[in-house]
Amino acid sequence: MTTLPLGDDKRPITTILIFAAMDSEALPVVEHFKLSRDDGTLFPLNVPWIRYHGCYKDLNLNVIYPGKDPDFGINSVGTVPASLVTYASIQALKPDLLINAGTAGGFKVKGACIFDVYLVSDLAFHDRRIPIPGPDRYGIGLRKSFPTPNLVKELNLKVCKLSTGDSLDMSPQDEKCIFANDAIIVDMEGAALAYVSSLMKVPSIFIKGVSNFVDGEKSIHEEFKENLQATVVEIRDVVARVVEFINGKCLYEL
Amino acid sequence: MTTLPLGDDKRPITTILIFAAMDSEALPVVEHFKLSRDDGTLFPLNVPWIRYHGCYKDLNLNVIYPGKDPDFGINSVGTVPASLVTYASIQALKPDLLINAGTAGGFKVKGACIFDVYLVSDLAFHDRRIPIPGPDRYGIGLRKSFPTPNLVKELNLKVCKLSTGDSLDMSPQDEKCIFANDAIIVDMEGAALAYVSSLMKVPSIFIKGVSNFVDGEKSIHEEFKENLQATVVEIRDVVARVVEFINGKCLYEL
Repeated sequence: MTTLPLGDDKRPITTILIFAAMDSEALPVVEHFKLSRDDGTLFPLNVPWIRYHGCYKDLNLNVIYPGKDPDFGINSVGTVPASLVTYASIQALKPDLLINAGTAGGFKVKGACIFDVYLVSDLAFHDRRIPIPGPDRYGIGLRKSFPTPNLVKELNLKVCKLSTGDSLDMSPQDEKCIFANDAIIVDMEGAALAYVSSLMKVPSIFIKGVSNFVDGEKSIHEEFKENLQATVVEIRDVVARVVEFINGKCLYEL
Repeated sequence: MTTLPLGDDKRPITTILIFAAMDSEALPVVEHFKLSRDDGTLFPLNVPWIRYHGCYKDLNLNVIYPGKDPDFGINSVGTVPASLVTYASIQALKPDLLINAGTAGGFKVKGACIFDVYLVSDLAFHDRRIPIPGPDRYGIGLRKSFPTPNLVKELNLKVCKLSTGDSLDMSPQDEKCIFANDAIIVDMEGAALAYVSSLMKVPSIFIKGVSNFVDGEKSIHEEFKENLQATVVEIRDVVARVVEFINGKCLYEL
């Protein structure tokens, strides 16, 4: 179930779509590459989705995020808004590669450290429990990211598995499923984007920075707030190095 | 936060989009209205999404369902596939009204009975726990369906609140949230479709038939399988009566 590109992968990568869940994760990347806000015509009228775009060397870069929920005025985190804006962007932009860059919770007990930035190898859900043989595997939805052995080696990146759920806290059932998914980090979008990526035949990679522990002493939210700014800087630096590495290369060279 | 139509609602309803999660829920409606399978050009290449369409009296009817997951060969139930196919269909068809018709689990303790068919007044999530003031309300995502007082009265429909989550089982955390949502029935798509409906400014109503209890003695899955066929017939009959009532009317007359 590796996500494979539709066409030939011997053509240099041209268009990259970078998804972030929140403006605080997206804007450091936007500023680094000096991207411009688009005119809003890419998406349907009235949706809060935001896109920045511009060129960097031979690449056409697009950073998207779902914006604030119009009914609640809150960042539209989670699987459903992430899937919708990514689907719409893939339809409009036909990117060669999807990059999901953002914060994650890490397991201290499994060796994660605050500010660690991982490249993700495998993604699965921990809050889609369908205890029937067959549908159970669909619910877990295990998918692999696009294999990038040269990128991992050249940039000396840490690699781990990720588990995704729509809650910020962790119930005992979530914990059991996260451990079954063998995940070192958790987020609220990754596995859904891997699904959209597979559905739309666009290869995807996932760059996740640890902003907080899920098994630490502090409250998840307090630790997240405390470390957010420093974590997004770490993520931005890895995204910049990854984009630099990708420039001029074909998918099979990653 | 009532979902309101974009334009004037004093024009007779013309195009209806009916979403079902599974073929077993969709096909009885398709057969009743003698709809035809479309040629597949409405959706992107290779996605498993399915649409049937046709005319009934003055109405253009469209039944959609997300089809089988290409990676797992299982019906694509749950919030993410439902949101994607509904979003894409709204974009393509610009419907006047979205109807979500399907099975649900019911609470015996709250008076639900197997084969009851409800019209839903309020929808919320029970598996998006974000325990921070502000984001917590976003996670719960309470939305109202389009108000249809004349439809409820004329067809003598039962009305209740619905809670949505991506798991077939119910964890203690889910149960607590479902009760906080004051729901009599649960499903795996409704609140996500209410979100897409609000985002895209298309009014939506929800017709849900109880196929199983979530607080009964039997296993949810066994009871669901046992009652599925008879439940979808009940749902189809209510959908047929609702469509008949809608024909020739404007939104404000519902």
